[in-house]
Amino acid sequence: MSTYIAPLRDMQFILNDVAGLDEICALPGNEECSVDLVESILDEASKFATGVLDPINRAGDTVGSVCKDGVVTTAPGFKDAYKLFCETGWNAMPFSPEFGGQGLPAVVTMAVNEMWKSANMAFALCPMLTGGAIEAIAHHASDELKQKYLPKMVEGTWSGTMNLTEPAAGSDLAAISTKAKAVGDGTYLVSGTKIFITWGENDCAENIIHLVLARLPDAPPGLKGISLFLVPKFLVNDDGSLGQRNDLICASIEHKMGIHGSPTAVMSYGEKEGAVGYLIGEENKGIGYMFTMMNHARVNVGLEGVGIAERAYQHALWYARERIQGAIVGDKSGVKKPILHHPDVRRLLMDVKARTEAMRTLAYYAAAQIDKAHAGDAVAQARIDLLTPVVKGWSTEQGVELSSAALQVFGGVGFIEETGACQYYRDSRITTIYEGTTAIQANDLVGRKLAREKVPGAGMKAMLAEINATAAELAGNPSLANIAVNLKNGANSLSTATDWVIANYESNPQAVHAGSVPFLHLTGIVAGGWLMAKSAAIAAQRIAAGDSDAFYQAKLATAEYFATHRLPFAAAYASEVTGGAAAVFGLPENLF
Amino acid sequence: MSTYIAPLRDMQFILNDVAGLDEICALPGNEECSVDLVESILDEASKFATGVLDPINRAGDTVGSVCKDGVVTTAPGFKDAYKLFCETGWNAMPFSPEFGGQGLPAVVTMAVNEMWKSANMAFALCPMLTGGAIEAIAHHASDELKQKYLPKMVEGTWSGTMNLTEPAAGSDLAAISTKAKAVGDGTYLVSGTKIFITWGENDCAENIIHLVLARLPDAPPGLKGISLFLVPKFLVNDDGSLGQRNDLICASIEHKMGIHGSPTAVMSYGEKEGAVGYLIGEENKGIGYMFTMMNHARVNVGLEGVGIAERAYQHALWYARERIQGAIVGDKSGVKKPILHHPDVRRLLMDVKARTEAMRTLAYYAAAQIDKAHAGDAVAQARIDLLTPVVKGWSTEQGVELSSAALQVFGGVGFIEETGACQYYRDSRITTIYEGTTAIQANDLVGRKLAREKVPGAGMKAMLAEINATAAELAGNPSLANIAVNLKNGANSLSTATDWVIANYESNPQAVHAGSVPFLHLTGIVAGGWLMAKSAAIAAQRIAAGDSDAFYQAKLATAEYFATHRLPFAAAYASEVTGGAAAVFGLPENLF
Repeated sequence: MSTYIAPLRDMQFILNDVAGLDEICALPGNEECSVDLVESILDEASKFATGVLDPINRAGDTVGSVCKDGVVTTAPGFKDAYKLFCETGWNAMPFSPEFGGQGLPAVVTMAVNEMWKSANMAFALCPMLTGGAIEAIAHHASDELKQKYLPKMVEGTWSGTMNLTEPAAGSDLAAISTKAKAVGDGTYLVSGTKIFITWGENDCAENIIHLVLARLPDAPPGLKGISLFLVPKFLVNDDGSLGQRNDLICASIEHKMGIHGSPTAVMSYGEKEGAVGYLIGEENKGIGYMFTMMNHARVNVGLEGVGIAERAYQHALWYARERIQGAIVGDKSGVKKPILHHPDVRRLLMDVKARTEAMRTLAYYAAAQIDKAHAGDAVAQARIDLLTPVVKGWSTEQGVELSSAALQVFGGVGFIEETGACQYYRDSRITTIYEGTTAIQANDLVGRKLAREKVPGAGMKAMLAEINATAAELAGNPSLANIAVNLKNGANSLSTATDWVIANYESNPQAVHAGSVPFLHLTGIVAGGWLMAKSAAIAAQRIAAGDSDAFYQAKLATAEYFATHRLPFAAAYASEVTGGAAAVFGLPENLF
Repeated sequence: MSTYIAPLRDMQFILNDVAGLDEICALPGNEECSVDLVESILDEASKFATGVLDPINRAGDTVGSVCKDGVVTTAPGFKDAYKLFCETGWNAMPFSPEFGGQGLPAVVTMAVNEMWKSANMAFALCPMLTGGAIEAIAHHASDELKQKYLPKMVEGTWSGTMNLTEPAAGSDLAAISTKAKAVGDGTYLVSGTKIFITWGENDCAENIIHLVLARLPDAPPGLKGISLFLVPKFLVNDDGSLGQRNDLICASIEHKMGIHGSPTAVMSYGEKEGAVGYLIGEENKGIGYMFTMMNHARVNVGLEGVGIAERAYQHALWYARERIQGAIVGDKSGVKKPILHHPDVRRLLMDVKARTEAMRTLAYYAAAQIDKAHAGDAVAQARIDLLTPVVKGWSTEQGVELSSAALQVFGGVGFIEETGACQYYRDSRITTIYEGTTAIQANDLVGRKLAREKVPGAGMKAMLAEINATAAELAGNPSLANIAVNLKNGANSLSTATDWVIANYESNPQAVHAGSVPFLHLTGIVAGGWLMAKSAAIAAQRIAAGDSDAFYQAKLATAEYFATHRLPFAAAYASEVTGGAAAVFGLPENLF
């Protein structure tokens, strides 16, 4: 079996040379961060990922989490790993020092989080959900709630969850029916059933802080009548110690196709007297607060696409170097070689590698925009608004495809569970669904982030201008000219499709939504191709300056691959957007 | 849960109007076949698929086959279903009346087999493998072996297997090391281990007839030193009764990601004295004989892509009609409707439907060529040679993508095993691997079927001429003009890529193989698009003639969708072929 080794060189290149880590360290509040410090953090994180999380990933899949009488036992090794994870400070890394965090920039946590997701995606969901809950509390809850809950959550001693979905309220949050009523002492009683609650119950954390969307009596219907409540598993005494068990229970956990290590709970609130909850912020504003968690979570789920593709790649590469099978076409010696030498195995691995690098670059670049926006940069805010659905939607769709491509490298043994390739394939399949399906992301992109922008399309057009500038810059270098041409063509396709979306959204939003997912793919390919082109330009400069680090040769090669094998698909996606809507609706419903 | 209903109208349209069933019934040897007879056969088959095979599919997945001490117990219901399958004559349908078969044309068995694969792909593997073994025996074995084994195999009382793969010999059959030696009485003793033997051991058939590739002492090395042996589980007495147990055993069955109902065996031959085997045909010609089975099996595995996509589609459509979630974009009433009304759900289902129809049309069309070639038509033989790797490789790759698209329709519940969508997604994943991976198919296509043809590219160019003629024909009808333009563009891309393959194969076969899989996708899209265009032309004629069958409207709609959403991708695949080889090899092995 293979061992996960963090791709530190690529991570550092992207952080330092593409995402501008030094700039970000210079922003107010990041004074303690430095390029050197980040390098040692990544080194330490890679050791934790390789040494602690990767070895228990398989047990997470084969044994998984088990629920009996409302008590969840996580997979062998998970509890100890979680303890160590918290003790060594990894849980606290991204959060504000005010509550015990280390306050590291988003771009740094992005690289570290990628390692957790590669090594053990099911495990990584626990700190990810806790992080989302921390964000929502930190931004919207009272000081009293913050002081009482955040320090333990930042440590990781208490984990956190997001409770949105109900049986009849999935993508349609307006249908939420869980109830809350004020008791009169400032607390509320919550009752209802929530499903798909990631890490909703577990034996790793001492307490679990549930953030629950519910309706107050007489609340307006729909999205404007939903409030957000903090509902702890154990009530917390004033001195911070744990009090009595709250009236909530894990009714069962789901039997899923993948991420078996992550307990996905059906949570039942208020079967007896009602679960004690605390209002976060104001009444009826819960949906807005929840989006604080959602945006955080969406970029992080996009990163799962990167992480799982990287891990699947490493596993397939290990096999492709080990497995000897057949002579190589065109090799007259007839010598049998590792299958990495077979052209199509080479193509599969190159495909996974190049596309994973493009996704990684986009994700870290997006995180840099989060850091800049946090420091007040409006341009960066517009960029991260635009790219959040792309990072989530495109990277997860790619992650599914690439974990499949990696499985294919194994041939017959790829389909055997013991080989381990199946796990990545199965695990990845949830990523295009949770935290908003690909269609939800795509509709956000063409709607809120484009056609319904204050100046429709302004954010996309600003990015396209930068993309075209990069293409023009590369065109001058003969060794990059091929990349430049493909990038320019891709940008033209995206520009045409953007204009079409803006021109048609008002009059025919259905037609635009019929092409929103192809538009998402198109945006991902062009944005990813752009950042790979920028990376190639930097690599070419270094080589021209005499730098002999082979990494730069490799980056040129993956950028060239992405340009010649992925950017040509931009035109096809654009034609689906601009010329395909009528055909989507061509069949009356009864004829399906 | 949904119930499988065979898409009889589409099947009959393709058989009668595209594949030319009446012509095929008129061929010598098919005199007893008629369009009416086929219609009633399909009706009966659909009842068997819906009533017997579909209901046990889930148990096949959840319980699966179990092996204990060499004895395999198949999933609940499988044994009874198999008995009924044989008793009602379904097993015998495709085979020669000489041995008790019904001798129906390939094109008819193709439609019937699709139903088995949709309803229960794991079950359908048993008759499929038996069929391959029957073909090999019927074509190559002595009359004595044929008389002794074929009648029971045609009935299905005895099942059959293909034993190719060994731990060190997967795609590279030249590495086979299983041994056979002549005893002197005309029989042989076989010893060695074979893996991935589909239905290698089971409790459904009374005897299992293994066809085993093995080497005789002093055989030449490589592919030219492999012979094919018939090795029965129970020796057969001269009167046809079962004799003693042969020296072979199922060592274990694999723990696979899908098709749990199909026991995939590790077979151990000759642990004691050696397993008694009978030479099929001549010594050292086993690989050629095995390809008789392989070509049969490849088209049939391609059909699995069709069958699983159809079943996944029906399951997702059922949910999309049932599940109510959210108001529809652009619908000012705000009324919540079934999710089929959401544009992206509509797109997903249209995508699965249109592409499944294209694959079905290609598979039945290919089967019609088999029937014509069987009657001596050399043009049809060239066409089926060309299309066999396309039906196998393209349809299975599509099947994986489409079962994923169907799962996406379910949203969160799609990832829960009880929903059933996961099974199709997991089951489908083997199809691009067994019976030759997609790369093996693609290399066969660009090599043997194109560049190394007697007149290189002649078969492809003949098909392209027909495709261009169809495009020209459609261009005259304004309602089909859009299809015509997209088909013409696709054909141009395929033509360019074909020329490139022929021009470069001799001097740089590695470069051609680096683009063989994109070339396979390209061929599939254009060939599928062509047959959908032909279908649209027929539908348009019927409508113009006053036929009010809504099926023709639906066919026009799916053809239009395929033309506007799939054919545009042809150009991108072609550019991967003609301009992407260098990039595949751009990274030295040590830099992966």
